[in-house]
Amino acid sequence: MPRHPAVSPTVRTMPGSVFSRLAHRIAAIEGERYPLHVGDTWMEPPAGARMEDLRVDQHPGLHRYPPPTGHRPLIDAIARTRGIDPDRVLVTLGATGAWHAVGGATLAPGDEVLVLAPYWPLFPGIVRSVGGVPVDVPFFRSEAFVPGASSVSALSPEEAVAQVAPFITERTVAIYINSPSNPTGVVLSPDVLKAIAELARSNGLWIWSDEVYELYSYGPEVVPIATFAPERTFSAFSFSKAHGLAGCRVGYVVGPTLPGMRDELRKMAMHSAYSAPLPSQLAALAILDPAVGPAWVDHARTAYKQAGDRAADRLQLPRPEGGTFLFVDVRAGLRNSDDDPLHAFLVRCIDRGLVLAPGRSSGAPYTHHVRLCFTSAAPDVVDRGVGVLAELLGMG
Amino acid sequence: MPRHPAVSPTVRTMPGSVFSRLAHRIAAIEGERYPLHVGDTWMEPPAGARMEDLRVDQHPGLHRYPPPTGHRPLIDAIARTRGIDPDRVLVTLGATGAWHAVGGATLAPGDEVLVLAPYWPLFPGIVRSVGGVPVDVPFFRSEAFVPGASSVSALSPEEAVAQVAPFITERTVAIYINSPSNPTGVVLSPDVLKAIAELARSNGLWIWSDEVYELYSYGPEVVPIATFAPERTFSAFSFSKAHGLAGCRVGYVVGPTLPGMRDELRKMAMHSAYSAPLPSQLAALAILDPAVGPAWVDHARTAYKQAGDRAADRLQLPRPEGGTFLFVDVRAGLRNSDDDPLHAFLVRCIDRGLVLAPGRSSGAPYTHHVRLCFTSAAPDVVDRGVGVLAELLGMG
Repeated sequence: MPRHPAVSPTVRTMPGSVFSRLAHRIAAIEGERYPLHVGDTWMEPPAGARMEDLRVDQHPGLHRYPPPTGHRPLIDAIARTRGIDPDRVLVTLGATGAWHAVGGATLAPGDEVLVLAPYWPLFPGIVRSVGGVPVDVPFFRSEAFVPGASSVSALSPEEAVAQVAPFITERTVAIYINSPSNPTGVVLSPDVLKAIAELARSNGLWIWSDEVYELYSYGPEVVPIATFAPERTFSAFSFSKAHGLAGCRVGYVVGPTLPGMRDELRKMAMHSAYSAPLPSQLAALAILDPAVGPAWVDHARTAYKQAGDRAADRLQLPRPEGGTFLFVDVRAGLRNSDDDPLHAFLVRCIDRGLVLAPGRSSGAPYTHHVRLCFTSAAPDVVDRGVGVLAELLGMG
Repeated sequence: MPRHPAVSPTVRTMPGSVFSRLAHRIAAIEGERYPLHVGDTWMEPPAGARMEDLRVDQHPGLHRYPPPTGHRPLIDAIARTRGIDPDRVLVTLGATGAWHAVGGATLAPGDEVLVLAPYWPLFPGIVRSVGGVPVDVPFFRSEAFVPGASSVSALSPEEAVAQVAPFITERTVAIYINSPSNPTGVVLSPDVLKAIAELARSNGLWIWSDEVYELYSYGPEVVPIATFAPERTFSAFSFSKAHGLAGCRVGYVVGPTLPGMRDELRKMAMHSAYSAPLPSQLAALAILDPAVGPAWVDHARTAYKQAGDRAADRLQLPRPEGGTFLFVDVRAGLRNSDDDPLHAFLVRCIDRGLVLAPGRSSGAPYTHHVRLCFTSAAPDVVDRGVGVLAELLGMG
């Protein structure tokens, strides 16, 4: 029992800011900055779905509480778009709020969630925030992150199962999977997803499917894993990167086909944030208008693909299949004489204006990797930032 | 270890919607509705602090991620307004997000929080959401809730301590106190607050002070309890009811004068919601402009006081000292022949368009009470809704 001035064992296990050691250096950057460490988009959201479009005279009460489950017209529009029962939809504070709610609804203290690595850096802390234990499962082929790699063939279904199965213990409750993947840029095939769904079913596990980049595949078909296991899959979606509303905190989770599950999700969500912001929900509703969202996404997808391809080409990496990130093995730029070679490398990047995320925040094995978001700044800024990285990796 | 399809022990202990049993009846209301069950305000936020005022051309990037601790200019403005160190301020999803973060940072599973009752209905579930145990402490004088009560004198400091002290166990970690009080309308005196602060200190407890109604006293001086115990007090504030931004989900918590505590709060906040919405933070920043917020609050305070006084007079209750609620003993309207007399009474209210919150959601002892918000609809609507209640209580 911690009492004043001690803090709780829960937050003691949670990661702090990965950038706190670097904050003063980032603040001191002179000249142009290349902030490619956060996942975001440089594009403003579609006209019609911006805060300035939400007028009190057209939306009286828009600053008042919505229901904790979400603004009913938004829930109905989501359900219509996806062809699902609206009672499975909970509107959340982006994917972060979605997984916090799912974790709260499904984990007991000490329960384990298998996290396919490398992964979205925020995710393990979300599991910790509800008392769970994230377990790193090295999954995506690390050869693909090494400059000079040709397009590395994806895992076969058998290989995928062989990677995951050994980590299942009697404390395992769920498998977290993210495709299109942050940070690898991989889009998992239907065969692999089906094999993982069957593995989950045969072990009585939940599937937590993070599909926030579902609209950003640059070729491969994106198939929802829920297709293969609708009874056990929670699927998270977001308007953050998909539609330029990251700072507005709005997304949603679609629960499994189990009666009453949305009520359990809502309990956790309403007691941690009450509801997603109503203005953001109105913006999301505008985006679901077929006349507003799809054209923006088509434009964004083209621009994102071009930025990703240019970055991959410059860094001699396979082009991303989807998403907004590259994961880069930077051993060529590390100096073994440094105490902490990756940290020293990140500092050298910052000294040239480039901010990247350390690979370790995507999984313990990634001690010589960085994550780069190729959409968090305008394309010309990204190009110049990638150029800095290429030079530091000896690519002239 | 719950696995598919079981849910977690955490959400099993959390309350569901108080209104789920009544939802179909509320939906079926014909004629005018008096939705006095939620705490909200009928007023739109100040001009200049509405979503329509947040233009991309003036705030480029306003839809993008802010830092998880909050938008730096807002933190600085809060710190300046309060005369405190900005490193003590975490911007949150209203008070709900504030207490979720504080609970996550200070409670271990099973730790107890003393909750002075009757209380804000959402609060115990927030404690549950982080694995804590809320303990009801009957505190405010229940004589004051009975129609016909004269203005009931407040508790003396000795009485206040005598009410709370017996509930302290070796599992107690914090005392939650809310003044001006939701739902009683009481503003606690500096002497009472000081006595509680000393009780907390002598037992090594944290103080969780909910001050979201700090600007809405209708007479008594509002003194922050942190004055008496700055080393152990977390104070939550909100722009929700204070400035008409409830649906925008923005508030903040000021941590104790302990180095590093804000980092612990931020961990929980960023892993449950990432950040408060940036547009809402920009609206809050506009409100802190001395030319924008104070005039609105002065206007609101006058209107709220008038609505509260009229409601209290009609119901023959002491006028509220602060806040936006009345807590009403409705025994005069209950029928012992009903299976669940309070539920049946709430249904009779709904059949006449009036929605109230059951007293039980503010504490187990309040089985014959209701909570009424006198600012959640326009004053004339509130007046008519209060009239319905008065009639059902036999006041003609």
